Amino acid sequence: MEERVLVPWPQNAENAPDGVHVSVYTGTGGPSVDLSEVVFYVVPYGRDQRLDLIERMPRLRVVQLLTAGYEHALGALPEGVVLANGRGLHDASTAEHAVALLLAAQRDLPRWARDQAAHRWNPHYTRSLAESRVLIVGYGSIGAAIEERLRPFATEIVRVARRPRPEQDVYGIEALPRLLPDADAVVLVAPHTPDTEGLIGAAELALLADGALVVNVGRGPLLDTGALLAEKGRVRAALDVTDPEPLPADHPLWEAPGVIITPHVAGGSDTFYPRARRFVDDQLRRWATGEPLRNVVHPGG
Amino acid sequence: MEERVLVPWPQNAENAPDGVHVSVYTGTGGPSVDLSEVVFYVVPYGRDQRLDLIERMPRLRVVQLLTAGYEHALGALPEGVVLANGRGLHDASTAEHAVALLLAAQRDLPRWARDQAAHRWNPHYTRSLAESRVLIVGYGSIGAAIEERLRPFATEIVRVARRPRPEQDVYGIEALPRLLPDADAVVLVAPHTPDTEGLIGAAELALLADGALVVNVGRGPLLDTGALLAEKGRVRAALDVTDPEPLPADHPLWEAPGVIITPHVAGGSDTFYPRARRFVDDQLRRWATGEPLRNVVHPGG
Repeated sequence: MEERVLVPWPQNAENAPDGVHVSVYTGTGGPSVDLSEVVFYVVPYGRDQRLDLIERMPRLRVVQLLTAGYEHALGALPEGVVLANGRGLHDASTAEHAVALLLAAQRDLPRWARDQAAHRWNPHYTRSLAESRVLIVGYGSIGAAIEERLRPFATEIVRVARRPRPEQDVYGIEALPRLLPDADAVVLVAPHTPDTEGLIGAAELALLADGALVVNVGRGPLLDTGALLAEKGRVRAALDVTDPEPLPADHPLWEAPGVIITPHVAGGSDTFYPRARRFVDDQLRRWATGEPLRNVVHPGG
Repeated sequence: MEERVLVPWPQNAENAPDGVHVSVYTGTGGPSVDLSEVVFYVVPYGRDQRLDLIERMPRLRVVQLLTAGYEHALGALPEGVVLANGRGLHDASTAEHAVALLLAAQRDLPRWARDQAAHRWNPHYTRSLAESRVLIVGYGSIGAAIEERLRPFATEIVRVARRPRPEQDVYGIEALPRLLPDADAVVLVAPHTPDTEGLIGAAELALLADGALVVNVGRGPLLDTGALLAEKGRVRAALDVTDPEPLPADHPLWEAPGVIITPHVAGGSDTFYPRARRFVDDQLRRWATGEPLRNVVHPGG
């Protein structure tokens, strides 16, 4: 019986190392290969990750995700199977979207969109990103990518992470009550863990100045949706992730004043694909040559 | 009779040099001072610049504008009066807005705004700014400020100005036919002169790839509106300036597919004001001490 690798993109099949049998499964419809041959499964990227197929792969040895989050896959992982994630693949795309949301909110782009729809030429002065103080909460690789992009806009960046790292000028989250009152914007990029759930709730929002902006490109539950709604527009928000998610059509957040919503698209722009394909090529090369895989988050037995 | 300076902001009056009599005129309503005393007129910033008041200022010696454009003031300028403009004051604000428009177009923000209004959570993959090639046409101080902001987004910048400056890697506009086919985005920041009018017309648009983006933060007439409409969405656009301007309510550009419009607000964000006030303070200090004024564009007699 052959050993087979399942990849999401034809390009990965074309670039496959010699001796590795590769089939393409894009995640759409059922896979056309014999799943009992699959030893290395690169899970398709998208809403439907088809982790349910894993139980039909008795010879499986590696599951490769293309998302940074991997908690959702642990339950489907048989004993002894290695799990690797897509950490880093989304950094550039997510950082870019965070800056897009900051600029959209500061430069009133939603208002101009409404005016355009109404054929209304009605200029007024807007906020700017320049000379504003931006807290980046969850300062890791994406936070650093956001900072790099913000620096030429003449912003002041304040770095915050779960644990303080004084040698990198990173405050711990326990400093938030002291930092929030002077922030023009707070960008949330922390992962969702028990100690980040509800990180920005009623008490934290109350510390923000009138008109301050909360941007969430991390995970929905970092920000308490009910507490944000209770601010009734005093604090603004630009959210790529929400709680609940997807946001139901009848949820009041859609109409909340001063709130911009994008549907969890920060990581999924064009820049992701070439990066992700190169990464999969490299993982397959490592697999074929016996080199250690990158981004292993759960070692096999 | 006193000599008097007319400034647009109370802060300038507070910071006025000793011996200079300063009055505030914000541009709203009629001025409450005796205009025959005015020797230095800082024209209020906004839509209504009240250049008509100049003819009631017989002792006038300096007109200070806060806009970069000054052609509109030449006709109102009596002989022997110095004219200075606001060159540089808008660079940061305009560059920021140009990047906001680039990101809004690449990350589909208008689509997400429509989906939000319809309470629709419908993610899809978008373009990105990363790994795109951006032509900056009219490479001067604002163009350089745009480039500085784009660099960390992993974009490739191509500099174009009216005349080539090989030592700064700046192409002349005669190179446009060669450069346009490979551009993902073209940012127009050139001034409006006879040789830039209609710089991007039907022939130039036809050279752009499907889905390429034209951003205009310069002057409306740089881009041929009719030619853009004829593209019917094949080429996208994000326009802070239009031709005609203001855009009449019944103009087809409002509804053109793939076109984002903001109403000439690039230069007028919060970051302009502190810069402009500091600049006026400095000009008054120069006036009081006999130092040459900055940004003189038309010398007095």
